[in-house]
Amino acid sequence: MHTKTQYSDLLSIKDNAEFISENFLLENKTAEFLYHAHAKNLPIIDYHCHLPVEEIAANINFGNLTKIWLNGDHYKWRAMRANGVSEKYITGEASDWEKFLAWAKTVPYTVRNPLYHWTHMELKNPFGISDRLLNEDTAKEIWDECNSLLNTKSFFARELINKFNVETICTTDDPNDDLEFHKQLIKDNYEINVLPAFRPDKGMMIENFGLFNLWFNKLQETTNMHIADFKSYLDALRKRHDYFHNNGCRLSDHGMETVYAEDYSLEEINKIFSKVLLNKELKLEEILKFKSAMLYEFSIMDYEKNWTQQLHLGAIRDTNTKMYRKLGPDTGYDSVGDFEIARPLAKFLNKLDQQGKLAKTIIYNLNPSDNELVATMTGNFQDGSVPGKIQFGSGWWFLDQKDGIEKQLNVLSNMGLLSRFVGMLTDSRSFLSYPRHDYFRRVLCNLIGKDVEAGLIPNAGDLIVPVIENICYYNAKSYFGFSERK
Amino acid sequence: MHTKTQYSDLLSIKDNAEFISENFLLENKTAEFLYHAHAKNLPIIDYHCHLPVEEIAANINFGNLTKIWLNGDHYKWRAMRANGVSEKYITGEASDWEKFLAWAKTVPYTVRNPLYHWTHMELKNPFGISDRLLNEDTAKEIWDECNSLLNTKSFFARELINKFNVETICTTDDPNDDLEFHKQLIKDNYEINVLPAFRPDKGMMIENFGLFNLWFNKLQETTNMHIADFKSYLDALRKRHDYFHNNGCRLSDHGMETVYAEDYSLEEINKIFSKVLLNKELKLEEILKFKSAMLYEFSIMDYEKNWTQQLHLGAIRDTNTKMYRKLGPDTGYDSVGDFEIARPLAKFLNKLDQQGKLAKTIIYNLNPSDNELVATMTGNFQDGSVPGKIQFGSGWWFLDQKDGIEKQLNVLSNMGLLSRFVGMLTDSRSFLSYPRHDYFRRVLCNLIGKDVEAGLIPNAGDLIVPVIENICYYNAKSYFGFSERK
Amino acid sequence: MHTKTQYSDLLSIKDNAEFISENFLLENKTAEFLYHAHAKNLPIIDYHCHLPVEEIAANINFGNLTKIWLNGDHYKWRAMRANGVSEKYITGEASDWEKFLAWAKTVPYTVRNPLYHWTHMELKNPFGISDRLLNEDTAKEIWDECNSLLNTKSFFARELINKFNVETICTTDDPNDDLEFHKQLIKDNYEINVLPAFRPDKGMMIENFGLFNLWFNKLQETTNMHIADFKSYLDALRKRHDYFHNNGCRLSDHGMETVYAEDYSLEEINKIFSKVLLNKELKLEEILKFKSAMLYEFSIMDYEKNWTQQLHLGAIRDTNTKMYRKLGPDTGYDSVGDFEIARPLAKFLNKLDQQGKLAKTIIYNLNPSDNELVATMTGNFQDGSVPGKIQFGSGWWFLDQKDGIEKQLNVLSNMGLLSRFVGMLTDSRSFLSYPRHDYFRRVLCNLIGKDVEAGLIPNAGDLIVPVIENICYYNAKSYFGFSERK
Repeated sequence: MHTKTQYSDLLSIKDNAEFISENFLLENKTAEFLYHAHAKNLPIIDYHCHLPVEEIAANINFGNLTKIWLNGDHYKWRAMRANGVSEKYITGEASDWEKFLAWAKTVPYTVRNPLYHWTHMELKNPFGISDRLLNEDTAKEIWDECNSLLNTKSFFARELINKFNVETICTTDDPNDDLEFHKQLIKDNYEINVLPAFRPDKGMMIENFGLFNLWFNKLQETTNMHIADFKSYLDALRKRHDYFHNNGCRLSDHGMETVYAEDYSLEEINKIFSKVLLNKELKLEEILKFKSAMLYEFSIMDYEKNWTQQLHLGAIRDTNTKMYRKLGPDTGYDSVGDFEIARPLAKFLNKLDQQGKLAKTIIYNLNPSDNELVATMTGNFQDGSVPGKIQFGSGWWFLDQKDGIEKQLNVLSNMGLLSRFVGMLTDSRSFLSYPRHDYFRRVLCNLIGKDVEAGLIPNAGDLIVPVIENICYYNAKSYFGFSERK
Repeated sequence: MHTKTQYSDLLSIKDNAEFISENFLLENKTAEFLYHAHAKNLPIIDYHCHLPVEEIAANINFGNLTKIWLNGDHYKWRAMRANGVSEKYITGEASDWEKFLAWAKTVPYTVRNPLYHWTHMELKNPFGISDRLLNEDTAKEIWDECNSLLNTKSFFARELINKFNVETICTTDDPNDDLEFHKQLIKDNYEINVLPAFRPDKGMMIENFGLFNLWFNKLQETTNMHIADFKSYLDALRKRHDYFHNNGCRLSDHGMETVYAEDYSLEEINKIFSKVLLNKELKLEEILKFKSAMLYEFSIMDYEKNWTQQLHLGAIRDTNTKMYRKLGPDTGYDSVGDFEIARPLAKFLNKLDQQGKLAKTIIYNLNPSDNELVATMTGNFQDGSVPGKIQFGSGWWFLDQKDGIEKQLNVLSNMGLLSRFVGMLTDSRSFLSYPRHDYFRRVLCNLIGKDVEAGLIPNAGDLIVPVIENICYYNAKSYFGFSERK
Repeated sequence: MHTKTQYSDLLSIKDNAEFISENFLLENKTAEFLYHAHAKNLPIIDYHCHLPVEEIAANINFGNLTKIWLNGDHYKWRAMRANGVSEKYITGEASDWEKFLAWAKTVPYTVRNPLYHWTHMELKNPFGISDRLLNEDTAKEIWDECNSLLNTKSFFARELINKFNVETICTTDDPNDDLEFHKQLIKDNYEINVLPAFRPDKGMMIENFGLFNLWFNKLQETTNMHIADFKSYLDALRKRHDYFHNNGCRLSDHGMETVYAEDYSLEEINKIFSKVLLNKELKLEEILKFKSAMLYEFSIMDYEKNWTQQLHLGAIRDTNTKMYRKLGPDTGYDSVGDFEIARPLAKFLNKLDQQGKLAKTIIYNLNPSDNELVATMTGNFQDGSVPGKIQFGSGWWFLDQKDGIEKQLNVLSNMGLLSRFVGMLTDSRSFLSYPRHDYFRRVLCNLIGKDVEAGLIPNAGDLIVPVIENICYYNAKSYFGFSERK
């Protein structure tokens, strides 16, 4: 493969050119103004992420760039695999430096992929590296510089997050979690509000006997309850829901291909749950009915405590059996699916709405072909009780890049109220992902700025500035209703 | 929620700035030229809308802005609900002024939604208000000014429409309608050709016993026929089809999730219809077979009289049971669906085409993910008999905004013949929606102008000008074949 | 219909204006530089097309423009049908001149359709006509000029292709083909590498008894084998696969609505194949199982020889029965479908990957709504063994135009590695389609150039130039591993 070319003309690395410049992504004066005067300095409310709270609590020293930047980052892993890098250098036995070098060699091949932007944004903030592009030639010096910083206390977990002007973080937690690390952070008076979020996937995963049983026994332990039937199962879960609430939790989260919305009777569910307790084999139909019942019950709990439920729809997961067996889930083998979304989603929301028990809801879809579907569906269940009660969620996962973000913002604008949007979240496992909020804010300001300059939006600050500021911060603050720290 | 911000810099409401300016949406000189010299002054043929003909016939005085602008406008209702406005101020018992004020307060929150553009375009034309944006502060003066105009005769229904340079309007009518108001308008020599269109939804709605029976009895009355079997049912409907034809109707219209295209035999349909007449319960399969038969038969009638049939595909309707019971259909609880479109659509069109009886057809899809599907499907049944015989319909409902219109125009351009497009329609229930034709024309001229200036289209007037003029007016005139007024 | 307009202002055919100018599609300096310095002069590897090899071997004189340009070109046929042209002038008994004139009259109506660009690009190269637009007025002179050139030896098939800087062509061939024409071209030392590709559609077309039997008997003849069971059937096919390999073939190709990925046992397939041999009627389920088995077996063969398999997904074909009976397949009655893609595609790829036998694969989808699905699916099966092992194929068929190409490039960029893309192919039946490679290169350079000028990509030649050059030529060269000509 041809990789280098001699040329001596138009394109050149300009001396000291800064790729991620002050006005990166901002294509006009209005955009620049909106971003610099109104967006960039607002605090971050990261209401959904997968940060490991135990590492914040432990205030860990990450040690080197591979540990903080490559380990667990399946975006980068996918790029490396696609680039022909052997698994040894990705999740295998190679040294941390070898892995970093393999990544650095891959970076130039990621041009136009969001990784290329994220990489250089993250090198700039927090590491202050903005005069070089990462590639094979610069790998060693960047490795050394960053590692040296990482080993200073201001780059340990807690202070690292502090650098990003984060106000609130919601992690993602199993109902059995005792939330000790969240509590410790409060006890330690950590400046940032680190709250749990309730993700009870395993509580409906009855198709997987082994996993469910382990989890179920843990639940009996955690709650100190004997669970003998569906009713006591719900009681136990509600106890955990209460516990999470008392620890500041205000969001739940569910991932699925499409919403579980089968018809069922309580009698049927009781029978199915008896079979579960007896480890009897289940029909697909029974599994779906049970999941439908669970999703409904979790939703009711959320409603009763004025939580926000999040639905992540449309991923086809664990497609690669060989690698699943080797590496487990969330290792880069999930992708965009094409499931039927509208009917089950409408049915689920309608049932709750009919009972007057529909919680605040955020719907994220992974296939952008469903953007219009989801954006318009939210409108069917807005009831005037809360501005933007049903939200069309921010560009998620593969869609968390300039094009994907712009498409979500445009569809939301055209089919709903952009102004009521609760905005960006990282959904990330990485401590270095906070620049994505900055990325989002630049994209947002650029979009609005372009519209203003094209005459599509009036050039009126009292109209536009609140839209920017609310989406970046105030809407989320108001919508989620997190308790203030004492 | 944070809504006002102090700032004193770039953005400002310019003194006397006009948001909806002469060159609104026109981004370059070619676009301006095309619009001003060739598009803006052409008459409007609004070949599909839901205007209440009885109000035109009665030449009603609308009285105030709420009555003409908010009542029945589910676009605005959805925006208000999403904005956290209580139903009292939307469809409830609040006063007209209170409702208008609630809308005015919502307007700034609709920035980037088409409502923001439509609102200010409609205030400018016909009300002449273009120096202010609608919001809480300007609500009272705009309310007063508009109401005062509305109570002058030139804003009563008939003269109001006259202001928009409309030549032809096709309303949407039930086969049982006696068309007395259409006739009266002819008798009165009303300048505008107000024609009926044939929408026989209720004639296939056998899943709803009560509604169908009422309608069916009315049909026997209207036709003065005893309907004892499927054959006489078709005879009665054909009698109405003839009646509509004699009253100038040249289009039919059908709304459905996806085309009904089940296989069936006449024997089966006879049996199903006997069950219908006896109020016997029907299986889903029987209902679908019956609807498939009806759609086919209506299509044959259209073919025989050289009408155009319109298929509106892809909406999921009445998703909110609570509000459906309270407010009925078409109140803002419908959205974009994801139904299987290609196979049934191909099957339906193919059956008619094989028999040499495929009428001129316009296919509108609500999910823009199906744009390419629909645009290419039309090409399978173009038979050279009529230019653009099978049409990919204009951006419909949620898609009736700049992005949606541009996507439809681009896909049609890439996969069919833009030049043969019959263009825009309002599909509206509101007397104030005619500026949407202006909106469409600006978007169209802008798109073509941009292509010309980018060198994608030759800068040749004899090539481009006819495309613009034909899409805005002449194609529709030729395609539908409305009778000239004597 | 209104077609001509008097005007005398902005738009005009500029004296000697050249529509397809040197910088056609290139909107900025970086794009111009990339194209002229790095893209335009690279050779073409047309790794998938439908050129009739026998015509190359025979070095035919096409005789006139209709024969080389209109015959067999269903894109143009569709446009003419949509434009209201009678079939007589498309595939009927009209003279070649009459057909050309009908096409010339249609051309102005194709503005914004890719045909308008392709037409004028092809008139410029190879015919050198760039000072006029094709329409009714210029038809006769263009007809005469082109025909006169076509009758000179440098426009006969072999030299014609030579004009386009083509290095390698892969045709599309039935396993029963003896490849005599490919061999002859080698014997003749034809400058261009014309290789076969393996397209065994008929080998799984058991739903069509007559066609399958004919083909099956031919296979027994060709291989000189008696095929008595599924095993010997595979042996025979493998023999042909070997034969193709020995004649330079390195790609297979399969067209289907969605991937065949039913579960099956060898026992079931044996039984089904016995029924096939006895001409017994088959259930749909059996047909799908058999196709699933065949697709798997072909894929294994491809893996074993390090070929690349191509999957063309998502077309709904032969929708128009009347015209199918008259004209057969591939005559303009196919369109974009909406089939379930993700689950069967994942299942198929996963099965092969689990066995360590997944060949290099290119997946083309016809519905652009599936772009993100396909682009992310490729990432699930990248295994680090070959850069870009699983490819998201170039914009196909209806998507082979500026918008479609840009969408494919953007989605690939966002969700995979653009830099590893094997690039453009014509997929064409026409000897005049090679300018589409030029079209693609301009679109690619323009996209990259725009990003550079907007600051989205660093202005660094050693980063960007290889991306351009690799996509245009070197990636394909390396990926497919064609044997060098001796």
